[in-house]
Amino acid sequence: MEYYSSQISRLIESLASLPGIGIKSAQRLAFHILDMPETEVEMLAGSMIEARRKICYCRQCFTLTDHELCPICKNPDRNQKLIMVVENPRDLAAYEKTGKYDGVYHVLHGAISPMLGIGPADIKLQELMQRLSGDVDEVIIATNSSLEGETTAMYISKLIKPAGIRVTRIASGVPVGGDLEYIDEITLLRALEGRTEL
Amino acid sequence: MEYYSSQISRLIESLASLPGIGIKSAQRLAFHILDMPETEVEMLAGSMIEARRKICYCRQCFTLTDHELCPICKNPDRNQKLIMVVENPRDLAAYEKTGKYDGVYHVLHGAISPMLGIGPADIKLQELMQRLSGDVDEVIIATNSSLEGETTAMYISKLIKPAGIRVTRIASGVPVGGDLEYIDEITLLRALEGRTEL
Repeated sequence: MEYYSSQISRLIESLASLPGIGIKSAQRLAFHILDMPETEVEMLAGSMIEARRKICYCRQCFTLTDHELCPICKNPDRNQKLIMVVENPRDLAAYEKTGKYDGVYHVLHGAISPMLGIGPADIKLQELMQRLSGDVDEVIIATNSSLEGETTAMYISKLIKPAGIRVTRIASGVPVGGDLEYIDEITLLRALEGRTEL
Repeated sequence: MEYYSSQISRLIESLASLPGIGIKSAQRLAFHILDMPETEVEMLAGSMIEARRKICYCRQCFTLTDHELCPICKNPDRNQKLIMVVENPRDLAAYEKTGKYDGVYHVLHGAISPMLGIGPADIKLQELMQRLSGDVDEVIIATNSSLEGETTAMYISKLIKPAGIRVTRIASGVPVGGDLEYIDEITLLRALEGRTEL
């Protein structure tokens, strides 16, 4: 890319290394950044550096936060005896957006995947077991509905059940607004198995 | 987004303000950035700030560069008497990628658009006319094939022709590999009008 000056090439390369950003998007972003007022570029760059520097794991649920405890774990209105286990902070955010869940979370930061060499020790599972030694009514496993997510759910449930704590799994089935015609067979079978009385 | 800490929210908002990045992509990017080693985040942020600070317009063709003259204008192997007029530096890069054009460029930084209130004085047209007072053989107008691009092309050609300089327009027609069936009527008519002898 010698038709760009070295700074522009470097910027494009840096942007293209981000997930979901190809070389074309990186070019568009780079030229947009070069068009932005200098103070705005500094704010954008600053927000990256500041976020990266200040962010740590919540001591209790391991989501990303800038305090020892995240706003959810700190909130006295949340039911601390109800723990939803999710794979990552984005999944936590997805459930928070529903606005209907009043328990707390536990972020695993991954899922068990023998294919990728990720074992139970590589995710925050030990930390979950430590939390369960306290007063817990129910653990809701909300890992993804993928092979890794299911494996992780099975593993956790086998680990927790002997302790006498209620373990549940979020339902799997046809998404609301989904057209049966376009839904894969496994989901259709899951929806059938999980059918409820009307 | 109070379920994210303030730093994360700020980072997501900054990223979502970039073109082509919605709130979902911004979230994904933000969490990716928080996962990156701190030095890499600093490099990414630094490349933005540095590029924005050092970049200026080439004194001759007005593309973005970090020197007084861009590498193309400085290159003695390029034909300085052949000027291709483009709307922005990305269009310049697109033609440079072909590797077959040996003239120089003139970047307008926009196109005339009465709808958006962009007139001839808002783009680098005065600067083009100044360049033409020198020794120029041909001006190739390579503005986009949009309404604004065509308007700009017409305007420039009317401005330049009286000076006795050859003015050409890049061809408009069916793209290579394009399937006639899926091509709009205007393009089909253009391709017909612009037919060449075999």
